[in-house]
Amino acid sequence: MRAVVLRNNQLVVDDVPVPQPGRGEVLVKTLACGICGTDLHALKFSKTLVGGSRSAGGMFAIDPTRDIVMGHEFCAEILDYGPGTRRRFKVGTRVCSTPSLPRGGADQGIGYSTEHPGGFGEMMRLCEDNLLEVPRDLPTEVAALTEPMAVGYHAVLKARLEKRDASLVIGCGPVGLSIIAALKRKGAAPIIASDLSPGRRELAIQMGADMAINPKEKSPYEAFHSHTSPRRPAVIFECVGIPGIIDEIMFHAPRDAKIIVAGLCMERDHLYPLSGIHKELNLQFVVGYTGYEFADTFRDIRKGKLRVEPLITGKVGIEGVPGAFQELASSGSHGKILVEPFRA
Amino acid sequence: MRAVVLRNNQLVVDDVPVPQPGRGEVLVKTLACGICGTDLHALKFSKTLVGGSRSAGGMFAIDPTRDIVMGHEFCAEILDYGPGTRRRFKVGTRVCSTPSLPRGGADQGIGYSTEHPGGFGEMMRLCEDNLLEVPRDLPTEVAALTEPMAVGYHAVLKARLEKRDASLVIGCGPVGLSIIAALKRKGAAPIIASDLSPGRRELAIQMGADMAINPKEKSPYEAFHSHTSPRRPAVIFECVGIPGIIDEIMFHAPRDAKIIVAGLCMERDHLYPLSGIHKELNLQFVVGYTGYEFADTFRDIRKGKLRVEPLITGKVGIEGVPGAFQELASSGSHGKILVEPFRA
Repeated sequence: MRAVVLRNNQLVVDDVPVPQPGRGEVLVKTLACGICGTDLHALKFSKTLVGGSRSAGGMFAIDPTRDIVMGHEFCAEILDYGPGTRRRFKVGTRVCSTPSLPRGGADQGIGYSTEHPGGFGEMMRLCEDNLLEVPRDLPTEVAALTEPMAVGYHAVLKARLEKRDASLVIGCGPVGLSIIAALKRKGAAPIIASDLSPGRRELAIQMGADMAINPKEKSPYEAFHSHTSPRRPAVIFECVGIPGIIDEIMFHAPRDAKIIVAGLCMERDHLYPLSGIHKELNLQFVVGYTGYEFADTFRDIRKGKLRVEPLITGKVGIEGVPGAFQELASSGSHGKILVEPFRA
Repeated sequence: MRAVVLRNNQLVVDDVPVPQPGRGEVLVKTLACGICGTDLHALKFSKTLVGGSRSAGGMFAIDPTRDIVMGHEFCAEILDYGPGTRRRFKVGTRVCSTPSLPRGGADQGIGYSTEHPGGFGEMMRLCEDNLLEVPRDLPTEVAALTEPMAVGYHAVLKARLEKRDASLVIGCGPVGLSIIAALKRKGAAPIIASDLSPGRRELAIQMGADMAINPKEKSPYEAFHSHTSPRRPAVIFECVGIPGIIDEIMFHAPRDAKIIVAGLCMERDHLYPLSGIHKELNLQFVVGYTGYEFADTFRDIRKGKLRVEPLITGKVGIEGVPGAFQELASSGSHGKILVEPFRA
């Protein structure tokens, strides 16, 4: 099958073997798969970080000398069933799934694995028990956004929002936008967002932010403070993921603020503990979601309770993936680019 | 009056004016006052940090060109009342108090202020409403430990301990020991402690630790993991306060651990966000205590429910304070050294 392969720290389009579904597994055809910021990180840092190094904290514990087909935000169509399956859905049914395959008592990743190709290839194998049926009236491209939206939902749940909490979202890439949508869904107000890109600020408003600040023009922290009472509890979402942002947020955060670190900074970073001590700040690092959170997000999307459509700002076929990675890495204006392997 | 003065980044013994009690204030004679690690920091970093610099996060916002009489962990005796007081206690009554003076609608510090001399001098002024009477049967030196014990009590409350939480205390200086005592008082188990000094490990056991590890011989994290189930929630108290410790703890912490940063690192520090992200760690920075927590701690000490006596490992008069600072800075074996200004 055709696939985009991460090989020797580069993306190449090549033919790779069709995955064979094992016991309890299904073979699916990829209909749409989003490109995630983590995929960009995996490409950029694959030389230094893949392999479970110190800095990676054990993530990406994969063999960098072997091919990887990335892509973990997908909607797919059932092609065939492996042994020991219940054949719950007809062949041809559209499905979503968490990108994980339970094997030997542990979950193995789909899309960050040399064993299990992800959605940047024509076919994948999924676990039958993880499948969620996509109803007829739900567009494929919207269903494919379940995974990134679950990331924001999880981050907001980890923040344990209370009624009076005011929210500030630093960075409006897909993670920040997903968090904004989840905050809006929860009824949080105000939601103040910040991003350098005009396009992303516009997306932030569409996803539910009450205000989107250009940090080159105005400090988002000042905007936040001037729109909320100083006694109001603050939750600040770090969705940038580059060195220095945690320190910047700690410096500007009000007393007792909760800081949710959802950005994926892959490098050594710095902080001044006294900033945190003096104000008794709380830093909650977050990643991923649970199976329940994924299912809840899917249900919210299905019922139209989560705004997702504005997120999609581009679509490419398999051949277009290397270029889309370059565009995402260089331009700060995209929401989500979807890969459609069978795109005409 | 005689006092130890922080002047030009040095400690000198000198005569300073007797403080005059203002409205609602009392004049007291210092009976005993502990030397705090923060006092050592204030001396060491007074050149660079006093003045509310970036790194200090606004703490120690005092004028470094003027004399400061430090000392904020005290037991004192009432000498006289200022105007507008209710004279709740007889002159001669022994009292404890939080080291703060409400003036002009804000709390001003005692012992980190150019205005309000602390307990390393013969006399102080305190707020009448903040006084707690020390009963006859409670030794002065034990009552003086209320303040440092309140620090540990506060840190443990901020940890929001749950029943199954297993505790690891990294560093057994006064803050770590105070936390161990508060954990023991709460019924937490197991409590595993770590310190390089044999004397402090012995103190940790006396204060209530179940085990005290020498990190030169054995990893405290391994000891912790081998004594608790991997599924048991972990609370790790950072009580060292030097650069690198937060990173070390994040690297070794189990998934979902709560890390309470109680050490007072005054310098720029580093971390690898991925360590936190991957394991969804939570960092809670803490400092100080509330008035209620101070009163609760005093009550627990009075009722004999908090172990405090082992903490005291030395006593000096005013002339001995500069030497005691040197000893505390160079030796890692002390608990608390008390200053007794009227020591014979």
